[in-house]
Amino acid sequence: MWRDLAPVGRSASSGGYFRQPWASAETELRSWFAEACAARGLTVETDGIGNQVAWWSPDAASDAPGVLTGSHLDSVLDGGAYDGPLGVVSALAAVDRLRDRGFEPSRPLGIGVFVEEEGSRFGRACLGSRLVAGATTWDAARELRDRDGVFLADAVEAAGLDPSAGLLSLDRVGTFVELHVEQGRDLVDRDVAVGLASEIWPHGRWRFDFAGQANHAGSTRMEDRRDPMLTYAMTALAANKQARLAGQRATFGRIAVEPNGTNAVPSLVTAWLDARASSDDALAELVAAIERQADDRAGRDGTSLTVTAESVSGSVAFDPDLATRLAGLGDWPVIPTQAGHDAGILSDAGVPTAMVFVRNPTGVSHSPDEHAETADCLAGVEALADVLAELAGA
Amino acid sequence: MWRDLAPVGRSASSGGYFRQPWASAETELRSWFAEACAARGLTVETDGIGNQVAWWSPDAASDAPGVLTGSHLDSVLDGGAYDGPLGVVSALAAVDRLRDRGFEPSRPLGIGVFVEEEGSRFGRACLGSRLVAGATTWDAARELRDRDGVFLADAVEAAGLDPSAGLLSLDRVGTFVELHVEQGRDLVDRDVAVGLASEIWPHGRWRFDFAGQANHAGSTRMEDRRDPMLTYAMTALAANKQARLAGQRATFGRIAVEPNGTNAVPSLVTAWLDARASSDDALAELVAAIERQADDRAGRDGTSLTVTAESVSGSVAFDPDLATRLAGLGDWPVIPTQAGHDAGILSDAGVPTAMVFVRNPTGVSHSPDEHAETADCLAGVEALADVLAELAGA
Repeated sequence: MWRDLAPVGRSASSGGYFRQPWASAETELRSWFAEACAARGLTVETDGIGNQVAWWSPDAASDAPGVLTGSHLDSVLDGGAYDGPLGVVSALAAVDRLRDRGFEPSRPLGIGVFVEEEGSRFGRACLGSRLVAGATTWDAARELRDRDGVFLADAVEAAGLDPSAGLLSLDRVGTFVELHVEQGRDLVDRDVAVGLASEIWPHGRWRFDFAGQANHAGSTRMEDRRDPMLTYAMTALAANKQARLAGQRATFGRIAVEPNGTNAVPSLVTAWLDARASSDDALAELVAAIERQADDRAGRDGTSLTVTAESVSGSVAFDPDLATRLAGLGDWPVIPTQAGHDAGILSDAGVPTAMVFVRNPTGVSHSPDEHAETADCLAGVEALADVLAELAGA
Repeated sequence: MWRDLAPVGRSASSGGYFRQPWASAETELRSWFAEACAARGLTVETDGIGNQVAWWSPDAASDAPGVLTGSHLDSVLDGGAYDGPLGVVSALAAVDRLRDRGFEPSRPLGIGVFVEEEGSRFGRACLGSRLVAGATTWDAARELRDRDGVFLADAVEAAGLDPSAGLLSLDRVGTFVELHVEQGRDLVDRDVAVGLASEIWPHGRWRFDFAGQANHAGSTRMEDRRDPMLTYAMTALAANKQARLAGQRATFGRIAVEPNGTNAVPSLVTAWLDARASSDDALAELVAAIERQADDRAGRDGTSLTVTAESVSGSVAFDPDLATRLAGLGDWPVIPTQAGHDAGILSDAGVPTAMVFVRNPTGVSHSPDEHAETADCLAGVEALADVLAELAGA
């Protein structure tokens, strides 16, 4: 399966992946998933926006609450091979392992793929699962635009999908399990290949618009300028410092500058803050502290600042009884994560949910350097098979 | 003339101009200039890359060294109406004034337009005049690429031009005079509408490539990051501070981030430094000081820095005898400028050159807010007509 996936959407220069939703690489991945399911005798249903699920249903109990596993196939811009696909490949491989073991489910067992998990194109992380879970409505989402100004509704239609055909139903989903490559180094520090998730830190995205006045970069005296790049630069440093001091996370990884010319003081700098903290209050405090410092500096620079919360996700506590029960299967540690996942959306929607993490030797993710050892990936498949046998065999 | 020019390449949202070379707005301006000359009985020659000149030549002395005046019609991204076009419009209007006055030139009097003065598309300021003056060769320039990766040679050809047809010759140019809107506030401070240029400050563009490691913005501990955005942010603030301390100019107005995703620590931040100083040594010191601080910070951030000089122009001293002679015509002040101009290129190439500045009430330039009062523009036309009469009448 990795051999098939390796070239899809890969950049020849960086070696990283560009698998943005509703574009060619992701369409290819959707076909690949349908074929992988068909090869296992499973039929894929694709909903109106491209979420996919294939159910392995015992005749006797096809109406019983099912167990869904899976992840996503889209990537961040220039992302790694494992973030998302590892959960889908492992789900397919776990079904193979269960069949090798002669396992027969006593309730439906599904493999699912959610679209636009990364929010790399339309800025809303977990968009596919949010729509399925009712956390976002289609009427609100359809007006989102990508960087080229394309509406979500048009992008979905251009990918050959029809939103009016409806969305995947969670009615059959009694439990959700997502396997994912770890995106930190907790499992490395604990020297184990597999762990389970306890919670997702609250996190969000805030757009900072710093407005100044365009001017000539040569003939405008330094003291006559209203340069928003300076306000932004101080804010990026302040965000880093605040997060360090508080033991939280804050990042400015995306920026857009107007007019973005070498010999012009910018008129506008727009930058996106990604912030995460261990509690909802700590997150609100972190963002408020950054915004306060940015405002102070804007006053000194003669610029102005507008902050817009684009998406904020509260803390997610995964079902603690479920985690305890599953951890007993392999003596796996139960650890928090700072990364958002479709599993968090389903958990928030009231679906008992668990996550299985696979060790990442460097902790690097959202990067072409992201990696997981084959032995750890295989350990992840065995662990997922054990978890599914526990949940779907009962 | 302003009425004809006003809508060409204008952004409906900002009110600024996008007149990038070898694209539709600039092609339209080239036609406009040819028609404006034709309406005055002058025939335009367009060279192989789009530089234009129209000569008003007395039969008796058509081989005498001529006087060339003019400027450029391209703009920075989201620029103002006056930077460039004021010099072209005033040249045409000055010819009208000379004819109204019954003036007959005793040597050829030309009106010229140089392409890509701003360097907004291919990153080299004054590219048209540099090629004409032999300061850059076509073989070197043809390989330049714009932001979309288009080669200069292909862009020129796509605009219907043929570089093999050769370039404008400076053989006929005995003197060059460029009228330009002032891009600072020296004339405001002196309370006069018109001034002449003494010199152009040395200036240049340096590309700073800050390389780090892409990583997950949520799950990567702050202390595990190698974030080039931080190194860039400190460098932008350091550049501003160094320039203030030294009484010079330094600006980071253009930036490109890889992968530029909200939830990823960047792998690469590329930013362009525009720096200007009152002497060649001061400029070298300014850039070295900024680079030193950037290097120090890169060491602390675990990032690396590469600095590439993309273009550096030494100081230009305009012909002092010429400036003194012309200043006497109107008791005009002779002032330095920090902005590069085609006049500087021609002066460096050995052509006796002068510049006429027209007051800019706010000093704002390279911005939709750039402005000059009509009365001052008319004073500029009268001054230019006086200068041309002095030079072409002798």
